Amino acid sequence: MHILILHGPNLNLLGVREPDVYGHLTLAEVDRRCDDLAAQLNVTLCHHQDNSEGGLIDRVHAAMADCAGVVVNPGGYTHTSVALRDALAGAGLPFVEVHLSNVYKREPFRHHSMLAPLAVGQVAGFGAASYTLGLRALVDWLRERSH
Amino acid sequence: MHILILHGPNLNLLGVREPDVYGHLTLAEVDRRCDDLAAQLNVTLCHHQDNSEGGLIDRVHAAMADCAGVVVNPGGYTHTSVALRDALAGAGLPFVEVHLSNVYKREPFRHHSMLAPLAVGQVAGFGAASYTLGLRALVDWLRERSH
Amino acid sequence: MHILILHGPNLNLLGVREPDVYGHLTLAEVDRRCDDLAAQLNVTLCHHQDNSEGGLIDRVHAAMADCAGVVVNPGGYTHTSVALRDALAGAGLPFVEVHLSNVYKREPFRHHSMLAPLAVGQVAGFGAASYTLGLRALVDWLRERSH
Amino acid sequence: MHILILHGPNLNLLGVREPDVYGHLTLAEVDRRCDDLAAQLNVTLCHHQDNSEGGLIDRVHAAMADCAGVVVNPGGYTHTSVALRDALAGAGLPFVEVHLSNVYKREPFRHHSMLAPLAVGQVAGFGAASYTLGLRALVDWLRERSH
Amino acid sequence: MHILILHGPNLNLLGVREPDVYGHLTLAEVDRRCDDLAAQLNVTLCHHQDNSEGGLIDRVHAAMADCAGVVVNPGGYTHTSVALRDALAGAGLPFVEVHLSNVYKREPFRHHSMLAPLAVGQVAGFGAASYTLGLRALVDWLRERSH
Amino acid sequence: MHILILHGPNLNLLGVREPDVYGHLTLAEVDRRCDDLAAQLNVTLCHHQDNSEGGLIDRVHAAMADCAGVVVNPGGYTHTSVALRDALAGAGLPFVEVHLSNVYKREPFRHHSMLAPLAVGQVAGFGAASYTLGLRALVDWLRERSH
Amino acid sequence: MHILILHGPNLNLLGVREPDVYGHLTLAEVDRRCDDLAAQLNVTLCHHQDNSEGGLIDRVHAAMADCAGVVVNPGGYTHTSVALRDALAGAGLPFVEVHLSNVYKREPFRHHSMLAPLAVGQVAGFGAASYTLGLRALVDWLRERSH
Amino acid sequence: MHILILHGPNLNLLGVREPDVYGHLTLAEVDRRCDDLAAQLNVTLCHHQDNSEGGLIDRVHAAMADCAGVVVNPGGYTHTSVALRDALAGAGLPFVEVHLSNVYKREPFRHHSMLAPLAVGQVAGFGAASYTLGLRALVDWLRERSH
Amino acid sequence: MHILILHGPNLNLLGVREPDVYGHLTLAEVDRRCDDLAAQLNVTLCHHQDNSEGGLIDRVHAAMADCAGVVVNPGGYTHTSVALRDALAGAGLPFVEVHLSNVYKREPFRHHSMLAPLAVGQVAGFGAASYTLGLRALVDWLRERSH
Amino acid sequence: MHILILHGPNLNLLGVREPDVYGHLTLAEVDRRCDDLAAQLNVTLCHHQDNSEGGLIDRVHAAMADCAGVVVNPGGYTHTSVALRDALAGAGLPFVEVHLSNVYKREPFRHHSMLAPLAVGQVAGFGAASYTLGLRALVDWLRERSH
Amino acid sequence: MHILILHGPNLNLLGVREPDVYGHLTLAEVDRRCDDLAAQLNVTLCHHQDNSEGGLIDRVHAAMADCAGVVVNPGGYTHTSVALRDALAGAGLPFVEVHLSNVYKREPFRHHSMLAPLAVGQVAGFGAASYTLGLRALVDWLRERSH
Amino acid sequence: MHILILHGPNLNLLGVREPDVYGHLTLAEVDRRCDDLAAQLNVTLCHHQDNSEGGLIDRVHAAMADCAGVVVNPGGYTHTSVALRDALAGAGLPFVEVHLSNVYKREPFRHHSMLAPLAVGQVAGFGAASYTLGLRALVDWLRERSH
Repeated sequence: MHILILHGPNLNLLGVREPDVYGHLTLAEVDRRCDDLAAQLNVTLCHHQDNSEGGLIDRVHAAMADCAGVVVNPGGYTHTSVALRDALAGAGLPFVEVHLSNVYKREPFRHHSMLAPLAVGQVAGFGAASYTLGLRALVDWLRERSH
Repeated sequence: MHILILHGPNLNLLGVREPDVYGHLTLAEVDRRCDDLAAQLNVTLCHHQDNSEGGLIDRVHAAMADCAGVVVNPGGYTHTSVALRDALAGAGLPFVEVHLSNVYKREPFRHHSMLAPLAVGQVAGFGAASYTLGLRALVDWLRERSH
Repeated sequence: MHILILHGPNLNLLGVREPDVYGHLTLAEVDRRCDDLAAQLNVTLCHHQDNSEGGLIDRVHAAMADCAGVVVNPGGYTHTSVALRDALAGAGLPFVEVHLSNVYKREPFRHHSMLAPLAVGQVAGFGAASYTLGLRALVDWLRERSH
Repeated sequence: MHILILHGPNLNLLGVREPDVYGHLTLAEVDRRCDDLAAQLNVTLCHHQDNSEGGLIDRVHAAMADCAGVVVNPGGYTHTSVALRDALAGAGLPFVEVHLSNVYKREPFRHHSMLAPLAVGQVAGFGAASYTLGLRALVDWLRERSH
Repeated sequence: MHILILHGPNLNLLGVREPDVYGHLTLAEVDRRCDDLAAQLNVTLCHHQDNSEGGLIDRVHAAMADCAGVVVNPGGYTHTSVALRDALAGAGLPFVEVHLSNVYKREPFRHHSMLAPLAVGQVAGFGAASYTLGLRALVDWLRERSH
Repeated sequence: MHILILHGPNLNLLGVREPDVYGHLTLAEVDRRCDDLAAQLNVTLCHHQDNSEGGLIDRVHAAMADCAGVVVNPGGYTHTSVALRDALAGAGLPFVEVHLSNVYKREPFRHHSMLAPLAVGQVAGFGAASYTLGLRALVDWLRERSH
Repeated sequence: MHILILHGPNLNLLGVREPDVYGHLTLAEVDRRCDDLAAQLNVTLCHHQDNSEGGLIDRVHAAMADCAGVVVNPGGYTHTSVALRDALAGAGLPFVEVHLSNVYKREPFRHHSMLAPLAVGQVAGFGAASYTLGLRALVDWLRERSH
Repeated sequence: MHILILHGPNLNLLGVREPDVYGHLTLAEVDRRCDDLAAQLNVTLCHHQDNSEGGLIDRVHAAMADCAGVVVNPGGYTHTSVALRDALAGAGLPFVEVHLSNVYKREPFRHHSMLAPLAVGQVAGFGAASYTLGLRALVDWLRERSH
Repeated sequence: MHILILHGPNLNLLGVREPDVYGHLTLAEVDRRCDDLAAQLNVTLCHHQDNSEGGLIDRVHAAMADCAGVVVNPGGYTHTSVALRDALAGAGLPFVEVHLSNVYKREPFRHHSMLAPLAVGQVAGFGAASYTLGLRALVDWLRERSH
Repeated sequence: MHILILHGPNLNLLGVREPDVYGHLTLAEVDRRCDDLAAQLNVTLCHHQDNSEGGLIDRVHAAMADCAGVVVNPGGYTHTSVALRDALAGAGLPFVEVHLSNVYKREPFRHHSMLAPLAVGQVAGFGAASYTLGLRALVDWLRERSH
Repeated sequence: MHILILHGPNLNLLGVREPDVYGHLTLAEVDRRCDDLAAQLNVTLCHHQDNSEGGLIDRVHAAMADCAGVVVNPGGYTHTSVALRDALAGAGLPFVEVHLSNVYKREPFRHHSMLAPLAVGQVAGFGAASYTLGLRALVDWLRERSH
Repeated sequence: MHILILHGPNLNLLGVREPDVYGHLTLAEVDRRCDDLAAQLNVTLCHHQDNSEGGLIDRVHAAMADCAGVVVNPGGYTHTSVALRDALAGAGLPFVEVHLSNVYKREPFRHHSMLAPLAVGQVAGFGAASYTLGLRALVDWLRERSH
């Protein structure tokens, strides 16, 4: 089973950008933690980070070929992107939405997600662990349905 | 007379993506139907699909050189893109907004269009025929004004 | 195949009323253009204009007897009439909503349609051509479904 | 100079209906007071009361033939009728909007008028005198412009 | 004691129109069930259905002559008609508002009634039984007050 | 057939509390009137009043064992209780919502019901008769469906 | 009978300020027209213009000593001044609110008046004639009540 | 380390109530799965379910004595309970908010949580796994901070 | 004269819970300060704290027997409880609403009180002194009215 | 310790203006009651009433020289005055906001205070006693902080 | 060329009032910096500060006599004053709106300006430099137009 | 000191696009004017224009390496881009937001900026001079802080 880990805009700055909000881990370390868990869960991962909405959409389309699901942190596009929502719906891939920070503690415009109503579920507020919890949840969800 | 047919994000998935909403026609077939009508109306077309907002804006700018108008299905950018609206206004090209589905039957965030107030008119809900009706309307509108 | 062309309030003033908004064509000329296209499409039409909400509802009910669909320009009742919406839903007749002007360029209260969510589709902004495009779209839609 | 005095729904009940809100005068007496003032101002009047929105629209259309302006109390249609607004705009007749009661003292849905932005002016709260003040204002306004 | 049973727009389609929402009973059968109960309660009824707002208002005015109260299903005018509200208030007739369907299960624009604040009470959701329950409630209410 | 009559907070004060709003009947008398009608309809009743949201939820859960439906006056919890709504949905018991007063005549926060969209129907405004009408409606509805 | 004519902020600029909105008459001329009508109606006037909210309030308080009512054009304070509203209410003086322009044709923040719910009535849109109509209405209203 | 697993209203119906929304697992089974994971993580749990808001608050207060944190599914109180929010804030216990279903797929009133801004994080949409993921996240979070 | 001092949810944590918001005084000390003032004012008090909405309602009902008024800090139920509002209205007991903190400095959902429109008055922001000021105000108010 | 008692617009009418809302006490009597309490509390007072927003701001600025705090009844400026709020913030003087009437019982525009979030606390609804309670609270608050 | 520098309410406190928000410069020093720049730009200035809305309006009217434009910091009147807006529009003087602080970082009620739609432009957030930048921009704008 | 001048979507059309709104200057000329001022201020500039949100974000990230601050005209992304806001916050670069036109004179959706709350300040409405004023302000601000 192959899973796409998709990182939205500005996540390349992780570990650099506002550490009091997002922690000191770099994106490479987050990806490595996901890889460690993937090995344990016996799945493989591909990773992609993009600052462009179009780039994220293109990557979701490509995932239709070989991925069983997506763990996506849509970053700033979470709150406004109808196009990314349509890409995930159109690709027909089950996905879990994850956020590093507890978005409900932050500015009101971060409280609404365009993607959430189509997701399997959400995990938010646990830093890098949001990704590993989301990956674990997605793999379990996919395995349950594949029986 | 040369017309740009501009397809927004995720329309490359046409025929694949949610066929109960968008039908079974592929984008290539939609483009071919437009070409057939164009031949009948004695105009030529160019086609462009882009998942990126910036890519769509670039294509609108380029159309200033050789197009008399645009038939645009802005997809998910319909509802949020001030920048695409500004591109069409800035290019000074008359355009018709088309949608495959009846957007008013769907989620409330799809009921508002940033582009509509600047369009010549809208056509929505007729699948691929929304494009051919829109093309026919635009060509008539342009010919009436060129006399 | 028989189609009802239904004109809402004030459309009897067409060609007289605010020509900068609605153009110089009279309602009789709009009806004649529809008849021309109907002949070409091999369908027949009946026409009705009414300034009264109740009169429009009565006409929709009557159309259940012999019409396959309706092209309706609900005029000022577009934005408020639950009763006309219920009439079209109750009659079970597929309909296309048309507007002479681009309603999204005008006052905000004209941006919302009570009927749109039940329509096959909408055409707006092309003057009299909104009717002929709408008629063409409705006939195609009905023929596709009758196979 | 000929002026239409147009009374909306339920005004036939005047003198009967809720006298604590609308006073004890009947509609016939209101019309007579308007006639008295008209004689004094050297204009003629026609009067019409209708409970139907369509009937009011028809009467406005008819007034295009022989009236220079309208004094209208749109009653309950004040707050919702796009169609009556369009009729007055389409007829191109200057009009004054009058109300017997001070609508701003009553339920919030009575605080907004669909017609007011197109009127020459409004007079509200003076009972039958709202009509005579409105008539006087309209005649003065018309005479000033006819010079 | 004489009671008016007043049916709003589209109720003439009852038994035809959207049976999954409104059931299979025709309006004639609803009226007959009301008549049966009226006989049992020792009151007489008159029935009126109208698709026009003005027609309903006229009928309410007429009821001032010989009716003690009204059971009204205002249909699509429930949500928008200030004029019908004013007619019932002006006539000074106690009334019960009834709805065949549970309006709170349906579109949000059906959740608000312009008439409800003036009614004795409301009954909604029980199909034809909404009328008989409403009639029973109104007769009891009138008898209690006539002692 | 066994039916639960469920009274929400403060209904124990009935006959004491604000008689101009709720009338002079005590809760015991309301219950007795329901019992009288139940005997006539050949069903049995149990009654429960609770000032606590949790207590009402517990009682709904218990009713799953032996009741065919519920007549509920949720009192002040009508407008805010997601938990009571979930209890009724979870219990899978058909219910009728009743109110002593016409809630639409009162403060705006009383115009919205959290329970209404799940109810079979509502009866409001008839004092104690709201309960007996609601009981009659529920029993008829249940009997129709048990055939 | 003595009446206060009260002019709010910026009305000293009348005839200078935005003549396309307010006309070419100066405030002195408006006051003279009011004086002419006052003579005709057999009442006396005092006039006051103030750019300060506090100054207007002080003048209203002073009017309690010798005025029977107020014709007030509150200018820009119309839409926000709770304090001026309280002054008029506290003084217990009947007043008519007048506006030179049709405020409903202008920016939305001019559509709401803090004073209107307490006024006898409003007159708007007739230029200087709004004052004379308002004065006539107020004097009639006061005389009717003094009998 | 001791953790409280707190279940809000109606969760005692789990496995019974709306299985298409909440799945077929009973609450006892959910608790057992949490116990299994707790053993693995080397922590101990206490469990409490309550249909009463006050009961849940009491239990949170009691947890101050011996618990290091709370995994809470506040059920229907999620959306309205200021008091439960204050209890968790006042107790000073870190907590994770969990939901069985994806609340963003459901009615709009379920999209807002009173507790979320104070939580460490949220997990929603994974059925019983929401609890075990939430427990895992909370224990990791507590251990990281205890170093 | 006997007065009920009623403390809402979480006030049992006083002195423990968020001392930077609520201060270091315990509830027992607040009660003692009230008792001291009561002795001075020659009235007697009873005290009750409850975390349950139903418990608070029950206590208000009980107070009808022997209390002349209530000083109530409704805590988190201030903002949502229609039922507690109805209890106080139903009991017919004059009450003063008090808050330890200045609620207008805190989250927006704390700015609205369901109880305030029925209270004699409010006191907020003075810590324990809010209670003693409220008690003093209530006793004066009651004594003034008992003459 | 010197305290400013600041009265906003229209309070000079006290005892005259709407006695059913504000009581029969004059402002001089309110000031005398404050002076009596001040003597008892061993502080001195200065009093100022102003109908002008600018006058109130000037007085607050002047108070920086010799006052330790302010008891302010901002009257109609409570709800709109950013400038008075800024004056109190800029002067750095602790203040208590008082209202004679229970503002939450009155028009909705009186429910919001621009000043409240910056106040030490509020007292409302007790007539002249609101001032003496507010003065007592302010003096206690200042003395506690001066230790 | 003569320019008015107009300072709104509380700006006399500059350097005293909330230095963390507004900096340590006094108003005299701000005026001196403007004078220095004016000398450099070869224009003359007059300065006025007023805490009263009416005073500011009076000063704007006076500027019609000898000023070519206004640099205005409307302080707390920015957000609410229709009257100051009307004064600037009526005077027909081009103006630049300046703010010391970045108003978009502050309370939401500071995000909206009544004056901004009529200004040439705005400068905000640069402390005293907002004035000098605004003055420079206004002079350039006036000179460009005077050619 | 090195500064990035960042131009958002459609600014490449400057001088071409809607000259009545944006003026006749080309982007090259705007950049040259900035360079002239930069030389005068003894700083260096780099310029970038991008129609893509992702491209703008990438450029902001790159600027972390060698720029001390950013002058940004975010064009159509001003109003919607959370991602560009996050990029600027994440990069930790002070920035000034500039607009050619007075955005408050235009459509309401242009009145809100996602970036403004994080900016040092804004300059809007002065055409190309908005850039030079913004550059001047930013350099001064940076120099003040570097002492």
